[in-house]
Amino acid sequence: MKIGGIIAEYNPFHNGHKYHIEEFKEKSSCSHLVAVTSGNFVQRGGPAIVDKYTRAKMALDNGVDLVLEMPAYYATQTAEIFSRGAVMTLEALNCVDSFCFGSEHGEIDKLKEAAAISMGISGDYEVSLRKNIEEGMPFAVAREMAVREYMDEVPSDFFKGSNNILAIEYLRELIRLDSKMEPITVRRMSAGHNSREVSGDISSATAIRKVLNGLELRENVMNTKDKHDFLRKISIIENSVPKTIYFELIDMISKEMYPLDNEDFFSEIRTCVIRNEGTLHNYFEVKEGLENSIRKTVVRAPKFDDVVAELKSKRYTSSKIRRCLFNILLGVKDRDMDIAKNLKQLPYVRVLALNDKGREILKKIKEVSDVDVVSSPAKAKLTDSYTENPVYKMLFDFDLRSSSIYYQKYYSNHREQLENGEVDYFNLITRLEQKNDID
Amino acid sequence: MKIGGIIAEYNPFHNGHKYHIEEFKEKSSCSHLVAVTSGNFVQRGGPAIVDKYTRAKMALDNGVDLVLEMPAYYATQTAEIFSRGAVMTLEALNCVDSFCFGSEHGEIDKLKEAAAISMGISGDYEVSLRKNIEEGMPFAVAREMAVREYMDEVPSDFFKGSNNILAIEYLRELIRLDSKMEPITVRRMSAGHNSREVSGDISSATAIRKVLNGLELRENVMNTKDKHDFLRKISIIENSVPKTIYFELIDMISKEMYPLDNEDFFSEIRTCVIRNEGTLHNYFEVKEGLENSIRKTVVRAPKFDDVVAELKSKRYTSSKIRRCLFNILLGVKDRDMDIAKNLKQLPYVRVLALNDKGREILKKIKEVSDVDVVSSPAKAKLTDSYTENPVYKMLFDFDLRSSSIYYQKYYSNHREQLENGEVDYFNLITRLEQKNDID
Repeated sequence: MKIGGIIAEYNPFHNGHKYHIEEFKEKSSCSHLVAVTSGNFVQRGGPAIVDKYTRAKMALDNGVDLVLEMPAYYATQTAEIFSRGAVMTLEALNCVDSFCFGSEHGEIDKLKEAAAISMGISGDYEVSLRKNIEEGMPFAVAREMAVREYMDEVPSDFFKGSNNILAIEYLRELIRLDSKMEPITVRRMSAGHNSREVSGDISSATAIRKVLNGLELRENVMNTKDKHDFLRKISIIENSVPKTIYFELIDMISKEMYPLDNEDFFSEIRTCVIRNEGTLHNYFEVKEGLENSIRKTVVRAPKFDDVVAELKSKRYTSSKIRRCLFNILLGVKDRDMDIAKNLKQLPYVRVLALNDKGREILKKIKEVSDVDVVSSPAKAKLTDSYTENPVYKMLFDFDLRSSSIYYQKYYSNHREQLENGEVDYFNLITRLEQKNDID
Repeated sequence: MKIGGIIAEYNPFHNGHKYHIEEFKEKSSCSHLVAVTSGNFVQRGGPAIVDKYTRAKMALDNGVDLVLEMPAYYATQTAEIFSRGAVMTLEALNCVDSFCFGSEHGEIDKLKEAAAISMGISGDYEVSLRKNIEEGMPFAVAREMAVREYMDEVPSDFFKGSNNILAIEYLRELIRLDSKMEPITVRRMSAGHNSREVSGDISSATAIRKVLNGLELRENVMNTKDKHDFLRKISIIENSVPKTIYFELIDMISKEMYPLDNEDFFSEIRTCVIRNEGTLHNYFEVKEGLENSIRKTVVRAPKFDDVVAELKSKRYTSSKIRRCLFNILLGVKDRDMDIAKNLKQLPYVRVLALNDKGREILKKIKEVSDVDVVSSPAKAKLTDSYTENPVYKMLFDFDLRSSSIYYQKYYSNHREQLENGEVDYFNLITRLEQKNDID
């Protein structure tokens, strides 16, 4: 058994992801594939367009054998913290041979070189960085220049690619953890990670979400005169996602399960901002006056996106503003992130979906790793590892809490789905018990 | 100048309120009338059906000269705390000769007698109360029996009337403050405070709200085929409220300014409950396991009212459950209520609306009282009294914070109303400055 790992949000799963999986399988000759994904809230700041179980199933239907959810404290933050949570999840399994990520550059060596320099392994990065900052460069520029100083021949757009940046973070994390996993990169197909338009077979998740969130859905759309308009609009993404996923999305929408976006949480965000106005600076990344400008802006901006547009600046990216707003909504505080950021080992990994091969991976994990493999949160909360380890409790409670906030919105037209209790306590167990309980 | 005071929520203003005002003017021969009302959240637990400025204007149009908003920490709690805030507001003016409240009993002497006994002024209330509790009576029964023990001839339904209970609380508060204001009671007309049906000229606010909240409004109702259905439904209250108010309500609804109810805040309440799941017991009245049952119930109950129905019991009234849920939403904590409850003097009173006679009352207040009269919150926040008095700051910040949370919902179809900032900072000032700034 040769196990490969993939880190991806599948928000939603599209042809680029499928291509990535196929390329990786060929390059690594792995026999089993585990993917680490975000849960219900994602790295760019905001809710996933469809929930984590649906996205996990999409991955399973397209070549992944086991889907794990990384702890939400990592999944919802900067590239550096996201990478940390993702790589720590794979590392915790202690049986992943290689793992794969996309990059614009597409060659591992240059990316590794940049990571090593920025970790101080070769060159004198810290000194150069400090000098650049003293000279007044913004941090991102200072960092790039300091790394460049010790690299030979680096393409001019190397540090422009957001996937290159993320790739370097993964590689830095491998160094930090002294990991033996082999990193493999696959060149991103034409569409940039953040490109806004759908075209051809490969489109970015951003472009696909833009179509899905722009559908202006009304109740009972499939039985009204709006039906044709809806089908015409959604057909724009038909060639960008696997067929099964395309029809699943239409089916969900026809049942009034709508794709979520940031706007769906705007009212709750406003309430949380006002209600906690005196302590906003305690939330992660909400600093340096952002607490005041957020307080002032949310109460009068027409929409969530207007808040972001108004507050973004040279100093603060849109993602940063979005993450700040969701850190307030979800209650992500400095003191918790300080602990999460400095961990070197995760106490648990969470299973979202698996097939028979995934079951073989789980068996292997139990042989070679001490990590808690959580399939049933209800059972996990009864274990000593949970009750006696405050870090486990902190991470896991936040996973469940943030997920629950998501499902309250996701099922707002279908509260009968919540009648039996919170989704995390029921979803996977129910599905697994139909086969054979894995605990 | 003889100044009379009234305590009422006007939620919404109806014929019973109008009758109450006329009766009081006759009984007290007062020349000027000041009313103390709740702000945007009310005593029964939940939002006011229309906002505080609209309700204040309704009062002004129907015989009141000056409308003051009592601090929200008092307005949103039990009868005892509500009375405390209301009477302290009138007392702070230091020029109110008499004040008036409705009661089922309609005669002041018996009510005064009950208040005096329960304050230990005559009889041995504390001893009897303790004995009754030791014998296992629920608190409300033990209290009633202890008071009865020292009263002669008291009607059997005396303690059943919710207005009698509130009246006794007002009278207790007069004793606590050693107030010189003369209490006057007016017998409530036929409709009980909480009776659920609209009938004849006098209906309860509860019955009127039931009609308004049951309209099942859709956008643009006056231009659709739903118009006649809407007008037929709302006409049920036509004879129960003054004509001007009836047409104002129709006008608001036709502009998609809908009457609010608890359900409108259910999503925000769910978010706040989940997000603060570890500290729910810090919110006022959320104790003795209620924190757990609330956490469990809100996430799966279909509606707000289902949560209340599920959690109410012999021990906990519906109002108590509603107030707990709104204490969590608004962030009302024990430590703040401890301070508010034990005050004997309010640092400020807040003006919501006034006419020329109201202006005369304000002039008088400034002559005879040290209390800060706040017409412009923006200006008040710049004064030393606000910045140097933590109690002032605590009370006033909560007034503004809770009000702002309300307006985010109230104007959810009209966010352009919030473009210039929060309503409390603009509404009254704008209106007053058209005449002559009173500060």
